[in-house]
Amino acid sequence: MKAEILTIGDELLRGEIIDSNSSFLSQRLLTLDIETRWHVTCADDRGDMAESFRRAAARSDVVLVSGGLGPTRDDLTMEVLAATFGRKLVLHEPSLETLRAFFARFGREMAAINEKQAWFPEGADVLVNPVGTAPGAMLEVQKESGGTVLFFCMPGVPRELYQMMDEQVLPRIAARCRVETWQRAALLRTFGIGESNLDEMLRDVALPPGVELGFRTQFPDNHVRPVARARSEAEAQANLETALRALRERLGALVYGEGEDTLETVTGRLLAARGATVAVAESCTGGMIGELLTAVPGSSAYFKGGVVAYWNDAKAQLLGVPEAVLAEHGAVSEPTVRAMAEGVRARFATDLGIATTGIAGPTGGSADKPVGLVYVALATAQGSQVRELRLAFDRERNRRLTAQIAIDWLRRHLLGAPLDLPRLGKVEKR
Amino acid sequence: MKAEILTIGDELLRGEIIDSNSSFLSQRLLTLDIETRWHVTCADDRGDMAESFRRAAARSDVVLVSGGLGPTRDDLTMEVLAATFGRKLVLHEPSLETLRAFFARFGREMAAINEKQAWFPEGADVLVNPVGTAPGAMLEVQKESGGTVLFFCMPGVPRELYQMMDEQVLPRIAARCRVETWQRAALLRTFGIGESNLDEMLRDVALPPGVELGFRTQFPDNHVRPVARARSEAEAQANLETALRALRERLGALVYGEGEDTLETVTGRLLAARGATVAVAESCTGGMIGELLTAVPGSSAYFKGGVVAYWNDAKAQLLGVPEAVLAEHGAVSEPTVRAMAEGVRARFATDLGIATTGIAGPTGGSADKPVGLVYVALATAQGSQVRELRLAFDRERNRRLTAQIAIDWLRRHLLGAPLDLPRLGKVEKR
Repeated sequence: MKAEILTIGDELLRGEIIDSNSSFLSQRLLTLDIETRWHVTCADDRGDMAESFRRAAARSDVVLVSGGLGPTRDDLTMEVLAATFGRKLVLHEPSLETLRAFFARFGREMAAINEKQAWFPEGADVLVNPVGTAPGAMLEVQKESGGTVLFFCMPGVPRELYQMMDEQVLPRIAARCRVETWQRAALLRTFGIGESNLDEMLRDVALPPGVELGFRTQFPDNHVRPVARARSEAEAQANLETALRALRERLGALVYGEGEDTLETVTGRLLAARGATVAVAESCTGGMIGELLTAVPGSSAYFKGGVVAYWNDAKAQLLGVPEAVLAEHGAVSEPTVRAMAEGVRARFATDLGIATTGIAGPTGGSADKPVGLVYVALATAQGSQVRELRLAFDRERNRRLTAQIAIDWLRRHLLGAPLDLPRLGKVEKR
Repeated sequence: MKAEILTIGDELLRGEIIDSNSSFLSQRLLTLDIETRWHVTCADDRGDMAESFRRAAARSDVVLVSGGLGPTRDDLTMEVLAATFGRKLVLHEPSLETLRAFFARFGREMAAINEKQAWFPEGADVLVNPVGTAPGAMLEVQKESGGTVLFFCMPGVPRELYQMMDEQVLPRIAARCRVETWQRAALLRTFGIGESNLDEMLRDVALPPGVELGFRTQFPDNHVRPVARARSEAEAQANLETALRALRERLGALVYGEGEDTLETVTGRLLAARGATVAVAESCTGGMIGELLTAVPGSSAYFKGGVVAYWNDAKAQLLGVPEAVLAEHGAVSEPTVRAMAEGVRARFATDLGIATTGIAGPTGGSADKPVGLVYVALATAQGSQVRELRLAFDRERNRRLTAQIAIDWLRRHLLGAPLDLPRLGKVEKR
C-alpha cells in the first residue's frame, strides 16, 4: 500500500510555518506498517490542488490531506476535491447542526460563511471533529489504472489533525488494508565514530534477509537504523532482533543506546543503578555538561553540582588548582585539568569528578596551544586520568563534542569499557 | 519565476525528522521576491528521485534540492540527477583535494567511499561547502517546453545548507532573475511578551505603504518580521527602516536585538562595553546560563564563572548559603536564591551575580512549592533583588525560560530598564 501526504497552504510555501503534520502522519502510518512515498505541499490554488489530487490518485493508494477546510475564501479542499473527481458538493445536515451547536455554545450566531464547512463531495464519509469547527472527510475514488484510492481530508490545525487521524482515519485504513509486507525498525545510537567509518565497519556484518541499514548523522552522534521487512510481523521482528544483536556485537561500546535514548539519560541510569554521584568542573564547556546531565528528570539523585571555572582565580579558589600549576603550565594543560577533576570531586564529595579545559575558538589560540586543544579528565577513588584532544570544528561544535566526550567517558567508566577515540581527531592518552 | 523545493530522505518520509529546510529555503527565496510553488519530499530511491527531478524540470524554473549528498550508499542525488538529464558523472579534482585536506585536518585517512563526494554531473557548477564534506552543485537543464531550469543541490544538514544557500545559491539566482518587485525584511527579536499580545500591541502602529508584519514564535522568544515591498530596492530599504524605528519606539526594551542577535550576544556586548563582570549560581538551570553566556566568543572578558549547586551542601559550602536559611526556608526560597546570588558575586569577586533555584518538574513539587515555582536573583554593589515566578511549561521549557529571564534581567539592569514580566505567568517582585 502506497501512501502520500498532501499539505495545503500558502503559509507553508512562504516558510512561515514548518510543516510538522507530514512528519506526524507518516509516523502514525508506520504503526500500520504503511510507508509514505511522498510528501507534497501546494498552495491554496485551484489548479495546483487539482494537479496534486490527480497525481496522488495515479500513484498512491491512500492520500492524507491536511488543510484547506476552514470557512474562508482560500479554503478550497472540499470544492477542488469534488471538482477534480467529478462529484457534486452536497449539504451534510448533521454537520450543519453540529456547527450551529458549536457557535451556540459560545453564545455566538454562526456567520454565513461557516455553512461552507457542512458541504462535502457526494459519496464522502464525514469525519467528525470534536475539537474544532471543520469536519473531515473520506472519499473513495476510482483509479484510472483500476482499483480505488482513499482520500482523507483533515484540518491543518495540529491538535485537530492529531485527534482525527487517531480516532477517525487510522481505524478506517486498518479496516481496509490487507498488510502483505511487515516492517520493523530500530535506531542504534553511537558516539565516537564518523558516519563513513561506521558504514565501513558494518559492511561485512551478516544480516538476515530483508534487513537494510540506514545511517544518520546527528552531531556529535551517528546512528544506524536497521529496517527489517518480512512476510509476517513475527518474522520481521525476529529478523530485526537478530540484526540488532549482530550490530551490537560488532560495534561494542560505540553503541550507547537505542530509540529515544540520549547519552545523558543512559549515563544517568548507569549512575543511578550503581548509586554513584558525580560533579563537574567546566572551563571551555562553560556549564554545558551540567546542563546536559540535569536535563534528565531525576538527575538530582546522582548529580551534586559543579563549578564553571572560566577565570583562573576561580580554578584556584573554588577548585583548589595550585597557583603554581596554573603559573607553570597554564589553564589549558594536563596538570590543570587533572587538578580540576580531583578538586571538584573532593569539594562536592562525589564518587566521580570530571573536568574540561581548552581553547574552543575562534580566537585565543597560540602556536603552542592552538584552537581546538582540549583536555578532559576523569577523577575516581583510584586516581585520575587525562585525555588530550585536538578538535577542528567551530566553537559551538568543539564545545558540544567536548561535553559529549566527557559524558561518554563517564558512561564507559561505569561500564568498565576503555575510552577509545581513534576516529574523533588526534587524541592522546596521559 | 517559479520555484520548487525538493527534500530527499527516507527519514523525512518516516517522520523521524521534521523538514525545516523547506521552510528556510522558501523564506530565503522570498528575499528575492520569489515565491515557492511546491515542496516535495521523496525517498532515497532512484525511481522516485528521477520522477521528482523530471516533474520539477517541467513545471519550475528554479529547483532547490536538499539531501542525498553524503558518502553512503543511500546518498544518490548526484548520480540520479546526472542520469535523469543524460549527463555523465565527472571527477572534480579540486573537490577531491578539499576532501582529502578536510580529513587530513583531523589526522584521518579519507575512506574510499568519500571520494564519491567529488563526482558531479557533467557541466555542473560546484558549490563549495566550507563547513562540511559534501559540496553542492548547480546544474542548468533544458526544459522540454523551451528555456532552462536551474537545479541547486545542497546538503541536508541544516547548518551546511544555510550557509550554502546564502553564500552560493542566492547570489547565483539573483544574478539570473530580473527582479521587478524588491523586498526587504528584518527580524526584531523580543523577549517577555506573548505572540498575541505582541500583535495587539502593534495593531495601531503607523507603517509605510507596502510594509507588512509577520510574527514568529521561537521559544522562549517572539519575533516580529516587517517586510517592505516596493518598486525599487532603495524605496523598500527606506520603508523598512521607517517601520523598524516605529516598531522599536512602541516596543521599547522588549526588543533585545535584530537579525541574528541572541540575547546572550547582546547582553555580552553590554557587559563588555561597561567593563562589568558576572558570575552565576545555578540550581534548577543546572549550568544552562553559564553555557549560554559562554557560547559567545570572547565571553571570557566578562564571564568569570559559576557554581552549579544542585545539592544543598554545595549551596552551603561553595556559595555560603547559611545552613539555617536552607533549614528554615528550603532550597527553593527567596532567602536562599538571594544568598546564592550574593554568595557567587562575592566568591568570584564580580560586579554582578545572578542565581536561580526552582522546581523544574515533572516531579518534586508539593502543595506549598509546586512544580514551576522558580526564584531568580540579581546581586549588585547596591544590594540584591529577587523575582518569584510560577511557570507552567514542561521541564525543558521551564529551565530554558528561567535562564532567559535571568539573562534578560542582566541586560535590563545594564540598560537601566526595569524587569517587567507581566505576560510570562504570575511573577512577584520581592
